[in-house]
Amino acid sequence: MKPAVVIQTDFGYGGGSAMRGVIKTLDPEVYVYEANHGVEKFNVVKAARSLDHLIGYWPAGTVFVSVVDPGVGTSRRASVALLKNGSYVVSPDNGTLTLLLENPGIEAVRVIDETVNRLKGTEKVSIFHGRDLFAYCAGKLAAGLISFAEVGEEYPVSEIVKYEKLNYTCEPGKLKGHVADMMYTFGNLETNIPIEAAESAGMVPGDKLLVSIKNKDSFVLSHTIPYQPSFGWVPEGEEVIYNSSDGVLGIGINRGDFIRKYNIGFGRDWHIIITKEER
Amino acid sequence: MKPAVVIQTDFGYGGGSAMRGVIKTLDPEVYVYEANHGVEKFNVVKAARSLDHLIGYWPAGTVFVSVVDPGVGTSRRASVALLKNGSYVVSPDNGTLTLLLENPGIEAVRVIDETVNRLKGTEKVSIFHGRDLFAYCAGKLAAGLISFAEVGEEYPVSEIVKYEKLNYTCEPGKLKGHVADMMYTFGNLETNIPIEAAESAGMVPGDKLLVSIKNKDSFVLSHTIPYQPSFGWVPEGEEVIYNSSDGVLGIGINRGDFIRKYNIGFGRDWHIIITKEER
Amino acid sequence: MKPAVVIQTDFGYGGGSAMRGVIKTLDPEVYVYEANHGVEKFNVVKAARSLDHLIGYWPAGTVFVSVVDPGVGTSRRASVALLKNGSYVVSPDNGTLTLLLENPGIEAVRVIDETVNRLKGTEKVSIFHGRDLFAYCAGKLAAGLISFAEVGEEYPVSEIVKYEKLNYTCEPGKLKGHVADMMYTFGNLETNIPIEAAESAGMVPGDKLLVSIKNKDSFVLSHTIPYQPSFGWVPEGEEVIYNSSDGVLGIGINRGDFIRKYNIGFGRDWHIIITKEER
Repeated sequence: MKPAVVIQTDFGYGGGSAMRGVIKTLDPEVYVYEANHGVEKFNVVKAARSLDHLIGYWPAGTVFVSVVDPGVGTSRRASVALLKNGSYVVSPDNGTLTLLLENPGIEAVRVIDETVNRLKGTEKVSIFHGRDLFAYCAGKLAAGLISFAEVGEEYPVSEIVKYEKLNYTCEPGKLKGHVADMMYTFGNLETNIPIEAAESAGMVPGDKLLVSIKNKDSFVLSHTIPYQPSFGWVPEGEEVIYNSSDGVLGIGINRGDFIRKYNIGFGRDWHIIITKEER
Repeated sequence: MKPAVVIQTDFGYGGGSAMRGVIKTLDPEVYVYEANHGVEKFNVVKAARSLDHLIGYWPAGTVFVSVVDPGVGTSRRASVALLKNGSYVVSPDNGTLTLLLENPGIEAVRVIDETVNRLKGTEKVSIFHGRDLFAYCAGKLAAGLISFAEVGEEYPVSEIVKYEKLNYTCEPGKLKGHVADMMYTFGNLETNIPIEAAESAGMVPGDKLLVSIKNKDSFVLSHTIPYQPSFGWVPEGEEVIYNSSDGVLGIGINRGDFIRKYNIGFGRDWHIIITKEER
Repeated sequence: MKPAVVIQTDFGYGGGSAMRGVIKTLDPEVYVYEANHGVEKFNVVKAARSLDHLIGYWPAGTVFVSVVDPGVGTSRRASVALLKNGSYVVSPDNGTLTLLLENPGIEAVRVIDETVNRLKGTEKVSIFHGRDLFAYCAGKLAAGLISFAEVGEEYPVSEIVKYEKLNYTCEPGKLKGHVADMMYTFGNLETNIPIEAAESAGMVPGDKLLVSIKNKDSFVLSHTIPYQPSFGWVPEGEEVIYNSSDGVLGIGINRGDFIRKYNIGFGRDWHIIITKEER
């Protein structure tokens, strides 16, 4: 069976229909799936995180397309990366690949040769590489019409554009990190602190944890939150810290909205300190 | 051909992409369709109604997955129900199955055995059974990797969790029931009164009907609305009562928003009385 | 391989799940794709434009279904049009087909015979032709269960309902047209002026263009905007006129929202005049 093409963009709901058509025209047997057209507009960090959460759950060999591309039509590279697990990512080289460099790792990367791997008849349009370049090239790759070598010229993996990742520290009984993401639908936040770091710090579900969140230097909250397996382990309306589905610590309210309650943001300016309380 | 997997959740648009990947990794030939990730958050009644409207339009043998699961990670059962039409529903046993007990009926129900039917490597995460348990188990069932008997232990259908359904009454010329649902996109409401009850009460399209809607004991409106086949049978901006696509009476405004006009809600507290007017 | 069915509606996200089930029940091997359920409610012009942007990117023979149908259940025709490129459009004949008459052209059109091409058991419901008539008939056509001749009676292409299209004029150095559409996600507008007209007028990327936009007789803006290949060619926050992905001139702001900045609308009352400035 041919590999699937899995697409994410920031075009908004309903946005990718011509992209899918382009691929189906190349080969109707290629399976195409639009994972999400709702990535935050222009937000390359969100695109990278979203890819990172997706790639491990799809079969090796899948061709991912990510189009969050504020620099479309300029000189940023349009690339195809071969991952160490055998899957591909077709995207602008603008930071989107940052997290994949570490996990699963990037084997090689090539710039898309527009003279052969661009949809014919679209040469006058420079604003829709999602359709004219990324979907078209991904479709050719998935259909077996071109090999990875035929994508275009290889360039060093070390030249891939990276954004600076958020750091965390871990010592016995104490974790320091950042609010790294928001799950707006459910009002939960995700930290950048892996479950394994919490384990190393000696924290286990059932513990009471002192959680402090700061926006730059101002404390937004600082109080005890129970660490539990899931929302339903605390009464409705109560706060809970838990192991999130992306493998990091998360915080939410059982049937409530933690983010809005405290008006929390995320990124480099949003610090979180978690301390295990004595029993 | 293998049965399809049809998914609904309350994760919000873009929410189910890892679920689909999990199934495609088990077997790329299983057809997966995300019917809707926009079920109202935590609303088990909406999940049940939405399933009810869907199941009859898909082939017998389809594996439905419904994840509206405010109790995820607690002791509520994670189940697979075999319906009397041969289809399956994989979901928390939290009321989601209520309407299916009557139509098409539930043949048998089993609790998912997490020791064999849970995605490996997710044991530390208790908040995403949609991906780790429901999608994984549904994928195995649809792929033919397990039989229904291999899902886990059977339990009595009589133990399935039910919510209390809304009632209606029907006498010649008079119907009493509830506002049961909202179609927000078009501003229409659905009652819980079947088309057949309207027929029994002697009401037919072309009639003038006196419609009264009460929130608890307060009348929200009480006036005549024409019963017609569809919106276009009344002038733009006029109200109309019609046979809805879910087989019950509905009320709307031709190119308008009935719900917002009267600020109507739905559920047990929202009563509707429909009386046929003398010609 | 059987032709695909590609669906667009104004039902809102999550709206088409029963439609897909109806087709999959007819033939699970027919590939069904929901391009967009987010077409602007009741807006036939938007439906026509959206189809127009889609059809050329899908394989010849594809069966398109478009359900933006404010007159559902009234006497407007429910039709299947055979396009000159071999694809089909199943839709209400209410203006939806306007743009296809010219490109790619319509070979023949037939009214759907409800006595044979309507889903059985839905005769009492007149508000959901999307499911009961359009999806069902499209599914039969794509599955090869009926031929085009078996759709129903043919009627003259000249009887197809058209809306009046927006006009533009082109002379050396000067273009006059309309704001024809909005890309709300990115805050860009599309004119009705083709790239080819700009070329005929002697305008090329790199030029400075004087852009005037009027709502009826009132000027909303009138100033110089650079014509460039894409957003990234101007600094962040700056305006740019470019070749849009639909083959016409578009205007936006690099990482900004042009539409909201000037509170611009679209349609017959919104005029745009573009003049090439002397260098």
